[in-house]
Amino acid sequence: MKIGSYNFNMSLILDEIKKHGYKTVLLQAPEGVKKYVFQVVDEIETKTKAKVMISTDPCYGACDIPVHAAKQLGVDLVVQLGHLPIPNLKLPLPVLFMNIVADAREEESVKKAIEKLEGTKIGVVTTAQHIEKLPQMVSVLKKNGFIPVVGKGDNRIARDGQVLGCNMSTAQSISDKVDCFLFVGTGRFHPLGIALATSKPVVSANPFTLEVLKSEINEEKKKLMKKRYGAIAAAYNAKTFGIVVSVKPGQMRMKTARVLEKKLENAGKKVYILIADDINPSLAKTFDVDCLVSTACPRVVLDEAERFEIPLLTPTEVDILLEETNKYKLDTLQ
Amino acid sequence: MKIGSYNFNMSLILDEIKKHGYKTVLLQAPEGVKKYVFQVVDEIETKTKAKVMISTDPCYGACDIPVHAAKQLGVDLVVQLGHLPIPNLKLPLPVLFMNIVADAREEESVKKAIEKLEGTKIGVVTTAQHIEKLPQMVSVLKKNGFIPVVGKGDNRIARDGQVLGCNMSTAQSISDKVDCFLFVGTGRFHPLGIALATSKPVVSANPFTLEVLKSEINEEKKKLMKKRYGAIAAAYNAKTFGIVVSVKPGQMRMKTARVLEKKLENAGKKVYILIADDINPSLAKTFDVDCLVSTACPRVVLDEAERFEIPLLTPTEVDILLEETNKYKLDTLQ
Repeated sequence: MKIGSYNFNMSLILDEIKKHGYKTVLLQAPEGVKKYVFQVVDEIETKTKAKVMISTDPCYGACDIPVHAAKQLGVDLVVQLGHLPIPNLKLPLPVLFMNIVADAREEESVKKAIEKLEGTKIGVVTTAQHIEKLPQMVSVLKKNGFIPVVGKGDNRIARDGQVLGCNMSTAQSISDKVDCFLFVGTGRFHPLGIALATSKPVVSANPFTLEVLKSEINEEKKKLMKKRYGAIAAAYNAKTFGIVVSVKPGQMRMKTARVLEKKLENAGKKVYILIADDINPSLAKTFDVDCLVSTACPRVVLDEAERFEIPLLTPTEVDILLEETNKYKLDTLQ
Repeated sequence: MKIGSYNFNMSLILDEIKKHGYKTVLLQAPEGVKKYVFQVVDEIETKTKAKVMISTDPCYGACDIPVHAAKQLGVDLVVQLGHLPIPNLKLPLPVLFMNIVADAREEESVKKAIEKLEGTKIGVVTTAQHIEKLPQMVSVLKKNGFIPVVGKGDNRIARDGQVLGCNMSTAQSISDKVDCFLFVGTGRFHPLGIALATSKPVVSANPFTLEVLKSEINEEKKKLMKKRYGAIAAAYNAKTFGIVVSVKPGQMRMKTARVLEKKLENAGKKVYILIADDINPSLAKTFDVDCLVSTACPRVVLDEAERFEIPLLTPTEVDILLEETNKYKLDTLQ
């Protein structure tokens, strides 16, 4: 089925609902796809006996399932459009993850990226949105004399070659075996994450605009590192820390929070555990702490920290602050 | 214990935790009180064996318990500062409601209100924050020759004389027996609610500023009615409706939503059920509907509707739209 410029396999949803005789479905979609969901509702309600409700709250990924809403409403099934599952995430009710695929020119973007690649062994990584075209990307590289290498992620990763904003294990797993990484997808966060998680050059190819970035990624990495060390420096004299723990099912890291709490307390700091569904700059205004540490999605810190009035650190940045390490590491969820 | 300018009985919290041997507590407070919660955390952690986590997400009342967070975190007890319980609300884990009382001049505000009262039988209503001073308010009225009447609310109301933004049953229960209402508290919503739910004059006395309003309430009521009929009029040609259902435990009205859905569908409208934790104007931008109906807290509609780009109606306003009634009624939760 096509909604907007996205495609997905509607019949899988219909089959799943019919097979189990589900009566009520909660449908969830990322922001860009929300405006098309009425078509999906109509299709389900016409072709099955299920009634569909639409989740309107933000959806940041497969880590962000509306478990509370689903339980509160007593629905039989959650259908999440737009993401692959996180395999090691245990959920308390049936969730059908329906990846959607945008009309994009993945092969062409790989062709355009070729002149910027280094060496012969190329690690190919991409996001869920483009993962169906991975064989084509690989084939373009082979045809052009490269040796494409596709990595396996850890248990948080559904498919070979896939990376998440919070998990670069797929790239890390092949870092030693490749000369360079080719990332196919949009935005700067994923290629930046690969650059931070490995020490190999990263070429980023956008399959919509056909823009290819390489030196820009490195520049961006330097800029980000400067900002992150700035935040760590700003936290040096902090006495009171708020450790933020998310209640999104796939972002909750209470154990990490408790380890950090102990380390910080041992260093003479006062620590409070702050529970949040939505982590935003109002936290820094409401609570009288000198520094916030977010154990939730690392993207919140790396993308949003500048909007906070006080330093916002990742767990691995706290280790640098406490001089437990002097090597900057990307914070990742497993 | 005093936090900021608020008082509450800390020993009740400590006793409850000790009595049950609770190990983990999730502490929740309304926005204005959040900045003082560290003192409460310190007190609990010093005097009991429990570890305390702080809920940072907005808290709109006793209807808004962080059930999801509490379950996700596996805490033993939720402590909510700032509200009285909603007696008929069934919650899936222990919640201790700890009303807090601000330093205010309730008696003085009643004295100041006297000259604006009408008749002799005065219905006295107030909010949780001031309910402890109800005997004093009553006594001032008696001393001045009035016959104070204190109403009983329905099962949503914890204390005689108390009103909620979503429930004016306490005022309605004595409406026939009084000449006029005296509301002691802040803000315009509650006195406006009383004016909408009864047809008696309402005098509103602010125990912080000692400001007394009467004609202003009536003016405000007229203004609000004009706006609400404007919204109903604007929805006349709407073809597609989004019925918003909240997942906050005390605001979820799926039955109401299903009744509305049927009525609207019988009137030839297309209806989608939209599930929301937070109801905000982005709903109107994201979903292609002509009109939104909120079954959640009526205050969302009455306070916020103007921020929405399309008409936002209460369930009772839909009845007017569908010409099932021609009498405006305050939407209330029971």
